[in-house]
Amino acid sequence: MRNDRVYLAGPEVFLPDADEIFRRKKEICSSFSLVGVSPLDDEVTRAGLPAARVARAIYRANRRSMRTCGACVANVTPFRGVGVDAGTAFEVGFMVAAGAVVFGYSHDREPYRERVEALCADNPAVAAHVEGGWSVEDFGLAENLMLPFGMEESGGALLSVQPEEGADRFRALAGFRACVERLAATATSSPAADA
Amino acid sequence: MRNDRVYLAGPEVFLPDADEIFRRKKEICSSFSLVGVSPLDDEVTRAGLPAARVARAIYRANRRSMRTCGACVANVTPFRGVGVDAGTAFEVGFMVAAGAVVFGYSHDREPYRERVEALCADNPAVAAHVEGGWSVEDFGLAENLMLPFGMEESGGALLSVQPEEGADRFRALAGFRACVERLAATATSSPAADA
Repeated sequence: MRNDRVYLAGPEVFLPDADEIFRRKKEICSSFSLVGVSPLDDEVTRAGLPAARVARAIYRANRRSMRTCGACVANVTPFRGVGVDAGTAFEVGFMVAAGAVVFGYSHDREPYRERVEALCADNPAVAAHVEGGWSVEDFGLAENLMLPFGMEESGGALLSVQPEEGADRFRALAGFRACVERLAATATSSPAADA
Repeated sequence: MRNDRVYLAGPEVFLPDADEIFRRKKEICSSFSLVGVSPLDDEVTRAGLPAARVARAIYRANRRSMRTCGACVANVTPFRGVGVDAGTAFEVGFMVAAGAVVFGYSHDREPYRERVEALCADNPAVAAHVEGGWSVEDFGLAENLMLPFGMEESGGALLSVQPEEGADRFRALAGFRACVERLAATATSSPAADA
């Protein structure tokens, strides 16, 4: 891959202990001679600024960080609903198009289709759409097909890992470690590696 | 922009009348001298093939179509939950990184934060996370900040349009038309336009 820098995509940015989680992720990267780059590395001044300026500054900081990375490991564990966090999905697409190697993991092994069925049981509006003939992806995939196959095209993969329940599923690092291990093997075996 | 081809991203692909919706979107593009490219244009053979092969073929077809387009109009109306369809978010990120001009619209004007609050009222697991200190974006934005600011960086924007309710919100075309109108103006005013 292009370099040894790995962008750490995922909804952990919203956790109260985000700094600690990114610290541990970076340690795992280091142990494989890779450099983890967190969306929070580039500090954004918030004090006294209007919301739109803060939001734009966060985007630009993430954007700059992504552009410096030759790889990405994304946490696509379902977040506030049936699937991946929207910002993470954007970043996966961005990094695939930018030519990075992208791996992903989910600490939920339930196929996307089953999660939609569970949502329908609780949500009459969604159930009405599905009953009205909306199709639901039925490929046995954990996530919308653009993500696993985008990762595959990039030279990475969406890995199936040990499921975790509750709030801890966003703090578990087994999936992340599995991705970094695969990424490190990809980096050293690739003829284009510039390490 | 790079050319006059516009990738039509959105969850309409899952609707039973997807073909008719894309036909109407293409008509709108034509009326502005642009060419709409639907994710369904490149037909994928499904009969007798295993699910994973069909899914990969769909990815590759969408991927090929995206690469031929210098612009994208994305429907980010919340889909099966609090936000944008995951495949659409991936495609927006992909097209921004690929250098396309990306516009988006949502037929839901409620800020993201209020949608999460409504979700918390129905879903104790999500409420527990938020009460446990997970932050919820509070920038008054309709969607995760990566999307509107990614669009802005590309030369496009996430437009605020007339809200629509129920199943019809995915068939309403006012937001799409507003984006194409803005895109056409961008295309003709841009010094880099090759039209």
